[in-house]
Amino acid sequence: MKALVYRGPGKCSLEERPMPVIVNPTDAIVRVTRTTICGTDLHILKGDVPSCEPGRILGHEGVGVIHEAGSAVSSFKPGDHVLMSCISSCGKCEYCRRGMYSHCTTGGWILGNRIDGTQAQYVRIPHAETSCYPIAPGADEDALVMLSDILPTGFECGVLNGKVEPGSTVAIVGAGPIGLAALLTAQFYSPARIVMIDRDTNRLEVARRFGATDCIDIGTADPTAAVMKLTEGVGVDCAIEAVGLPATFELCEALVAPGGTIANVGVHGVKADLNLDKLWDRNITITTRLVDTVSTPMLLKTVRSGKLDPKQLITHRFKLSEIGAAYDTFGRAADTRALKVLIEA
Amino acid sequence: MKALVYRGPGKCSLEERPMPVIVNPTDAIVRVTRTTICGTDLHILKGDVPSCEPGRILGHEGVGVIHEAGSAVSSFKPGDHVLMSCISSCGKCEYCRRGMYSHCTTGGWILGNRIDGTQAQYVRIPHAETSCYPIAPGADEDALVMLSDILPTGFECGVLNGKVEPGSTVAIVGAGPIGLAALLTAQFYSPARIVMIDRDTNRLEVARRFGATDCIDIGTADPTAAVMKLTEGVGVDCAIEAVGLPATFELCEALVAPGGTIANVGVHGVKADLNLDKLWDRNITITTRLVDTVSTPMLLKTVRSGKLDPKQLITHRFKLSEIGAAYDTFGRAADTRALKVLIEA
Amino acid sequence: MKALVYRGPGKCSLEERPMPVIVNPTDAIVRVTRTTICGTDLHILKGDVPSCEPGRILGHEGVGVIHEAGSAVSSFKPGDHVLMSCISSCGKCEYCRRGMYSHCTTGGWILGNRIDGTQAQYVRIPHAETSCYPIAPGADEDALVMLSDILPTGFECGVLNGKVEPGSTVAIVGAGPIGLAALLTAQFYSPARIVMIDRDTNRLEVARRFGATDCIDIGTADPTAAVMKLTEGVGVDCAIEAVGLPATFELCEALVAPGGTIANVGVHGVKADLNLDKLWDRNITITTRLVDTVSTPMLLKTVRSGKLDPKQLITHRFKLSEIGAAYDTFGRAADTRALKVLIEA
Amino acid sequence: MKALVYRGPGKCSLEERPMPVIVNPTDAIVRVTRTTICGTDLHILKGDVPSCEPGRILGHEGVGVIHEAGSAVSSFKPGDHVLMSCISSCGKCEYCRRGMYSHCTTGGWILGNRIDGTQAQYVRIPHAETSCYPIAPGADEDALVMLSDILPTGFECGVLNGKVEPGSTVAIVGAGPIGLAALLTAQFYSPARIVMIDRDTNRLEVARRFGATDCIDIGTADPTAAVMKLTEGVGVDCAIEAVGLPATFELCEALVAPGGTIANVGVHGVKADLNLDKLWDRNITITTRLVDTVSTPMLLKTVRSGKLDPKQLITHRFKLSEIGAAYDTFGRAADTRALKVLIEA
Repeated sequence: MKALVYRGPGKCSLEERPMPVIVNPTDAIVRVTRTTICGTDLHILKGDVPSCEPGRILGHEGVGVIHEAGSAVSSFKPGDHVLMSCISSCGKCEYCRRGMYSHCTTGGWILGNRIDGTQAQYVRIPHAETSCYPIAPGADEDALVMLSDILPTGFECGVLNGKVEPGSTVAIVGAGPIGLAALLTAQFYSPARIVMIDRDTNRLEVARRFGATDCIDIGTADPTAAVMKLTEGVGVDCAIEAVGLPATFELCEALVAPGGTIANVGVHGVKADLNLDKLWDRNITITTRLVDTVSTPMLLKTVRSGKLDPKQLITHRFKLSEIGAAYDTFGRAADTRALKVLIEA
Repeated sequence: MKALVYRGPGKCSLEERPMPVIVNPTDAIVRVTRTTICGTDLHILKGDVPSCEPGRILGHEGVGVIHEAGSAVSSFKPGDHVLMSCISSCGKCEYCRRGMYSHCTTGGWILGNRIDGTQAQYVRIPHAETSCYPIAPGADEDALVMLSDILPTGFECGVLNGKVEPGSTVAIVGAGPIGLAALLTAQFYSPARIVMIDRDTNRLEVARRFGATDCIDIGTADPTAAVMKLTEGVGVDCAIEAVGLPATFELCEALVAPGGTIANVGVHGVKADLNLDKLWDRNITITTRLVDTVSTPMLLKTVRSGKLDPKQLITHRFKLSEIGAAYDTFGRAADTRALKVLIEA
Repeated sequence: MKALVYRGPGKCSLEERPMPVIVNPTDAIVRVTRTTICGTDLHILKGDVPSCEPGRILGHEGVGVIHEAGSAVSSFKPGDHVLMSCISSCGKCEYCRRGMYSHCTTGGWILGNRIDGTQAQYVRIPHAETSCYPIAPGADEDALVMLSDILPTGFECGVLNGKVEPGSTVAIVGAGPIGLAALLTAQFYSPARIVMIDRDTNRLEVARRFGATDCIDIGTADPTAAVMKLTEGVGVDCAIEAVGLPATFELCEALVAPGGTIANVGVHGVKADLNLDKLWDRNITITTRLVDTVSTPMLLKTVRSGKLDPKQLITHRFKLSEIGAAYDTFGRAADTRALKVLIEA
Repeated sequence: MKALVYRGPGKCSLEERPMPVIVNPTDAIVRVTRTTICGTDLHILKGDVPSCEPGRILGHEGVGVIHEAGSAVSSFKPGDHVLMSCISSCGKCEYCRRGMYSHCTTGGWILGNRIDGTQAQYVRIPHAETSCYPIAPGADEDALVMLSDILPTGFECGVLNGKVEPGSTVAIVGAGPIGLAALLTAQFYSPARIVMIDRDTNRLEVARRFGATDCIDIGTADPTAAVMKLTEGVGVDCAIEAVGLPATFELCEALVAPGGTIANVGVHGVKADLNLDKLWDRNITITTRLVDTVSTPMLLKTVRSGKLDPKQLITHRFKLSEIGAAYDTFGRAADTRALKVLIEA
C-alpha cells in the first residue's frame, strides 16, 4: 500500500509499505478514505518529537472503512464507516475510566507517533472499539475528518476547560486551525464576546466570518490595551492560548479577569513565566490538557444537528498521491491561506 | 483606646488612639476580645505591602462584641458576639454576588491594610452584616479566632481549589500555620494520603500529630523523589503550595500527577517558572486565590459539630498590652515553635 | 398614584393610592415605567394564593426609574433606570449567600404578594441594591421587563436545573410564556433537539419560530410515542415541566431518558404520582425551584450582546389606564394569542 | 461444581452444576472464594424479579481468583485475585463511556439475574477487565466482598447523589445494610450530623456505633417532628431513602430542607406520592440510581488507607455448603441481628 513515511528531520516520502495486520484481538484494520495534516505533523518533520522515529507512517486523523476486525471486536464489522480518533483509548485502564483517554496506559497519542498512522491507504487501529466512532450512512465524511483531533482539541482543551458560558467574554490567542476550532465550539455556549488575536490578517478575517465579535491584529495593536478597552478594564473571563509560545501564554496572563481561566491548548517547547506576584490573589485557574476526545460523541451530535459545521475549516483538497503538495500547502499557510487540507484516498 | 500602629518598615508601637466611629450606616464598631497575628502582618512590617501606610492599625483577625451598629445594620445589635472575617464583603457588588468576596469592589482585604484593623480595643467593620458572623453563646471563642483568616484560607485556596476527595493523595508544601490549616481541613474529605513537606522538624512533628500520613524533611530528603516513591511514580492528585516562593511552587509542578491540581495558597513576591514544556499535555489545573471567606458558615458548622478543632493551632497567649512580645514570639517561630499566638483584650 | 389593587377572588380595580414611602434605609421608591402581567397574577385573582390579601397592589415585574433611595442605598440614586427583580433579596442571609434568593428570610417572592407590587405608578422595593439591576443608557427597556421573572424562571428552573448541553435532547411540556422562555434560553447551550409539547396550535407555531426543532400537538398526537420515535426509543436528556399539572409532570416521567433530568418549572396545586417502580433504577434527577434570579446579570449580558431577544415574547401593549383590558387580553390567551402584554406608565 | 440455584418463588437449592466456560474472548472464569447475600436475592426468591428465571445460579457479589481468562483479556491472568463488581460493564458503549455502567447495553446488573451468578464455586464474568478489580496481595478479602455492591450502592446512590458535604445534615431512612453503607461512606465528607431512622432498635445501636450522631426509632418517635427539632425547623440538607417503600420516600419529602436533596437508594415496587404542591418552590433535587460501581477504585483506596472499614458489616460466616443456613439467617435479620453474612468457598 501507499503511505507517507517519516525519514528523519526534514524528510518524508510517499512509499510502498506492506499492509498492516491485526496484532491484538481488539485491533481493527481501517481502509483510510480521508485524512488530513496537523500542525503536530509539521513538528515531527522538524525533528521536535523524539518519540516519533524515522520509518514511521505519519498521520493521526481520518475517516475510513473497517477492512478487518480483531476477534474481540464486536461493535464493528468490515464495511462499517468509522471516524478514527487521534487518541487511542483502551477503555479499561484507570485513566480511561476517569475520562482521561489522553493518558491511556496502552494508548494516548500513539497514531503516527509511536505506531504507524493514517496518512496511508490502510492503518491498524488499536483498541478499535474505544478509539473509533461509527459514521451514520449519508454523513458528510469530509466534515467528520475534522473531528479526529482539531475540533475535540479546541473544544476540550480550550472551551470546556475555559468554562465558556452564556454572556461571558473570551479571548482566543492564535487564529490557526486550533484557535478557529475553539472559536467555532465556544459558540455552543453563547458567550457575549469572542475576541480573536493573531498577526495574520487573513486568518482574522476568517475568524470574523466564523463568529468572532472582535479581532485584534497584534501587528498593529497592543492586544492587552485593546482587550482592556473592550472589557472596561476588567479582562476576559476566559483566555485560550492556541499558539504554544511563552509570549502568547504570558499575554493570556495579562488578559484574564479576576476569577477567570487561562485554558492552554498550545504545544509548548519551553517554559513560560508565571507572574505569581500579580496573579496569586486574582482567583484564576490555569489548565493544560492533551485532548482526551471524550467529547467526540457530543461533537458528532452537534454536527448531525447542524449546530456545528466543521467543513468550513477545509481550504484545500488533495489525493493521497499528492500528499507532498498537501504538506507544502499546509506548511506555507501564511501564503496559501490554508487552514485544513483534506487528503482523499 | 490602645492599638498597635504600623510606623513604617520595621516599626510598630502600641499607642493610644481615638475610638473608631460609624462612617457608613452599614458599619459596626466591635470591641475586640481576641485577635491574633498573621504572616501577612510580618510582611507589612517588612515594608512589603505598599497599600498599608504608616499610621495604620494592624490586624485582620478577631472575635469581639458589637459595641455600636450603624442604622442599616439589622442583624446585629450591641452585645452580640461576632467573628470578624479578614475579608470585608458588601454582599451586593458583582464579585460578592458570585462568591468572590476577596474582590468586593468596596471591600476585600482592607482591614489592617487600607483601613484600621483588629489589633486594638475597638475596630470599625464596614459592611458589618456581611463581614461578621454571629457566635452562639457558649462557643469557644479562642478557637473561632482561627476562622477569621487562616482556616478559610487553607480550606478555600488549598483544599477546595485542590479538589481533595476520598482516597486521593495530597502534598502540602509548607507546614506553617496556613499549611497546617490546609492539613486540618483536607481531612474533611478523607484523602488516602497527606504528605507534608517542610524543613522545620518541629512543624513536621506537629503535622504528623494533626493527621499527616507522611512527612518529608527537605533538609534531609529530596521531596520529589520521596513523593514519587510514595505514589508509585505517579505524583499527587493535589499539591498545595503554602509558602510563596518560586522554588516551592516549582516543586509542586514536579509533584503533581497527570490530571491533578496545584492549588496555590502562598503569597508570592516574584514570578515562578511554569514548565509548560513538561506540563502542556499533563491535564493539570493550577489555581490561585485570595481567600473569599465564603466557607465561613460551613467551617463554623464543622467546629460546632466537633469535626474541626482549630484551637490546636494556638501555641501562645498574650494580653493586648504584651502584643510586642507576641510579635516577637510569632516572628521567631523557628525558635519559639509558635504557630498561632492568641492576643486577648 | 394609580395602582391595580386586588380586592378578593375575581376582583381587582385600578384605584388611587397613596405614594409608597421608604420604610427601611435599604429601600428604594421606583417610578414604574413598564410592567407586565404574570400567570401568577391570574392565580392570585382566582384566590389560589392565600398569602396575597385583598387590598394588595399586584405585580412583580417591571422596569422604572429610581425616585427616592434609602439612606443605606449607595449604588443607586434618583434618576437611575433599573430593572426590578420579581425576587427580593437581602444579600446577607444564609440563603442569599448561597445564591438561593428565592428563600431570602426577609425577601423572596413578596412583591405583589405580601407587599404592594409593580402594577402601579410607584413601588417600594425592599433591599433595593440587591433586588434591582442598573439599566445601561439606550437599552431597550421593553425587552428588559421580560427579565424580571419570566426569563430567569425559564432559564434557572428549566434550563440550568435541566443541565441542557450541546448536542442534548430537550422536551418542553407547555408552550406558554414560561415554556417559551425556557425554549429561548435553552438555545444558549446548543442542544441538538428541542421538542415543544402543547395543545395550542398557535403557541406551537410560535415555538417553531423561536427555535423548537419539533412540535407535538397533544390534541392530535400521543406525546410519549412521538418523543420516543424522535429519540430512537431512548427518551430526552432533559424534560422541562412548564404547566403545573399532575398529568404534565407524569408525562415528563415517561419522556426522560436514563441518566436524564426532569426540571419542574410549573406551579403545582396538588400532588403528582412519582412512578418510582419504573424510575428507581433509571439514574434520573428531578428538580424543583422557585426562581432565584441569580442569573439576571448573565441574562442582561446575553441581551446586551444580542444572544437573546426577549422582546419577541411581547404580543400586546397597553397603558396603565388600560390595565383592565390588559388582564382580559392576557387571561384569554387562547383566543387573543397573547404571550406577554406590556403595560406602560 | 456446587451452586445455589433459583427454582421459582420460595425455592432454591444447592446443586451440582457444570463448570462455566468462556463464551466471549472478553470473559473470565473466576473461582469464587467469598460471596455474600443481598436483599435483592431475597426479592428474587419472593418471585419479585421476573428477569431472573428458574434455573439461574444466584449471587452478584464476591471475590475470587482468576481461573481462566478469555483471549482478549490482557490485564488479568490465572491466579490473580479479583473483586467482582455486581455490575457488568463493557467499557465501550455510550453508557459506560459516560460512567453509567448500570445501563451498559450488554451488561448492567445481569449477574445472578439474567446470567448465572457468584453463589457457586465458579462463575463466568463477562467484560472481565472492566467488571473486576485487582486485589493487592495481603488485602483483607473479607472486607472487599462488601465492595461488590453494598458499599458502592450506599455511596453512589446515597452519598454522592445526596451531595453530602462538610458541616451538612443528613438523614438516612433505613438502617439495613445499605443504609449503614451510606452511613459509613457519608462520613468521608464530614457532615455535622447524620440522623439514622429505623424501627429496629438493634440496627439503630449499630448505627450509633458506626457514627450516627442521632438515632430516631420510628416505633416510639415521630421522625418528622424529631428531625425538625434537631435542625431547628429547617430540615436536612440530604435525605437518603434506603428502604424502598412509599411511606419512607414520602418521609424524605417531609424531612428535606429548602435547597436540599432526596437521594433514593431503595428498590421500589410501587409508585409514591410526590407532593409537588409543597415542593415546587423548595428548590430540591430528587435522584434515583442503580449503582454504577464507578466509585469502586476510590472505595478500594479508602479501604487500603484505613479510612473505611467495611468488615464491620459482617455479622455471620458460613461455608458454601451451609448457604441454606446463611439465607435463613439473613432472611430473619430482625431476629438474628444479621447485617451481612459471609460465605466462604
